[in-house]
Amino acid sequence: MTRFALTIEYDGRPFMGWQRQRHGPSVQQAIEEAIYSITGEEVLVYASGRTDSGVHALAMRAHVDIEKPIEPFHLMGAINARVRPNPVAILDCREVADDWHARFSCVARAYEYRIVNRRAPLTWEAGLAWQLALPLDVQAMQAAAEHLIGRHDFTTFRSVHCQAESPVRTLDRLTIERTGDRITVRTGARSFLHHQVRSMVGCLSLVGHGKWTPDDMRAALHAHDRAALGLNAPADGLYFVSAAYPD
Amino acid sequence: MTRFALTIEYDGRPFMGWQRQRHGPSVQQAIEEAIYSITGEEVLVYASGRTDSGVHALAMRAHVDIEKPIEPFHLMGAINARVRPNPVAILDCREVADDWHARFSCVARAYEYRIVNRRAPLTWEAGLAWQLALPLDVQAMQAAAEHLIGRHDFTTFRSVHCQAESPVRTLDRLTIERTGDRITVRTGARSFLHHQVRSMVGCLSLVGHGKWTPDDMRAALHAHDRAALGLNAPADGLYFVSAAYPD
Repeated sequence: MTRFALTIEYDGRPFMGWQRQRHGPSVQQAIEEAIYSITGEEVLVYASGRTDSGVHALAMRAHVDIEKPIEPFHLMGAINARVRPNPVAILDCREVADDWHARFSCVARAYEYRIVNRRAPLTWEAGLAWQLALPLDVQAMQAAAEHLIGRHDFTTFRSVHCQAESPVRTLDRLTIERTGDRITVRTGARSFLHHQVRSMVGCLSLVGHGKWTPDDMRAALHAHDRAALGLNAPADGLYFVSAAYPD
Repeated sequence: MTRFALTIEYDGRPFMGWQRQRHGPSVQQAIEEAIYSITGEEVLVYASGRTDSGVHALAMRAHVDIEKPIEPFHLMGAINARVRPNPVAILDCREVADDWHARFSCVARAYEYRIVNRRAPLTWEAGLAWQLALPLDVQAMQAAAEHLIGRHDFTTFRSVHCQAESPVRTLDRLTIERTGDRITVRTGARSFLHHQVRSMVGCLSLVGHGKWTPDDMRAALHAHDRAALGLNAPADGLYFVSAAYPD
């Protein structure tokens, strides 16, 4: 048995999310079926994060155990050939130690959220970004973001379906950058709660539109109450960007 | 009658190109039909450049004459609403003088060509970039590009279907830039021949892969012969970026 670490890019639009579902296609299933067609083995692929329906990944990390002897380079090419026409690509594949775990060994995760701040509808970016017509005040958004950085109870920014034991997380960074009509929100933490990034971005958009002040963001955080959430941003603009591991 | 100047973004994938065709959908037709549904007028929309099937635009410029009194801001919103589900968006709309012509008043045009230089197939960028698996030498590509800059007979880099009277054009710039596995070729000129950008990029890729030297590019240019063309790059990666007008 060899354990392989995979780095995976995918377009989340056609999927119900990363995790295997009974009622629709998932990224996990697409990759597991590609591997089955190569090795004849029914494998489980474990990811560093389980993205929701419609969420994308630039570099999801995952691992899988395979009995059949195969070179990482050949495994990567074979999965990429068999996974089509699903919009999934293995960017890297390497052997790792048997105790390396994509989820449990992961010490930091990063997401980015893409906003197109213009009146016109999206063309090729439809489903790949969140279009907001009214001008966003990025300075006010950054001021509000500062309240979220650090160790907090993020109950307000957590889906009611979140299965994590604790609502406490330590947010390492949350930045908002504008280039022309493109606004990118970048965030990093050891781990995130379910819907945390989308909930933070949704409330940041309220601040950007002047409906909330930065202080309203702090009040929402301290409410520790999902009912205090202003807005949950759509899945479209969310990208899993990277996962970090010791050395 | 009022003449309106439009700035248009579109995803070229579903279209036979800018220009109206009998046998398939075009961007021109999509916009003309949207305007007809607003004003009841059968108009002609003139663009600064006629892109081919599968070619995209970040900011195509165009003009149209409309009899019915309408504010530019309302015209823009109405076209954007009616043009759906076509992946076309009007980014800007303003009144211009009756002698302003999107094509004949244009004094400079710019294109960019997007290459993803990696082994893995494309996911959401399928049809939006050219994937090249083998590493490209960007320095060699830039050296070859220098031979094309300036005033030349570009017969080698011109489609046999090109309708321009002269094959002589003045290329103002041609740069190649790498950021990670993304390579962007940018070029500008008063005007381009049919397939000129794709033909230049195709030959640049041969240089990047070491199949051509920069001197081979010069020899191809000086051959003044379409048969000397090494490769025509696919439409996928090509974007019409901007058109410039006096003041």
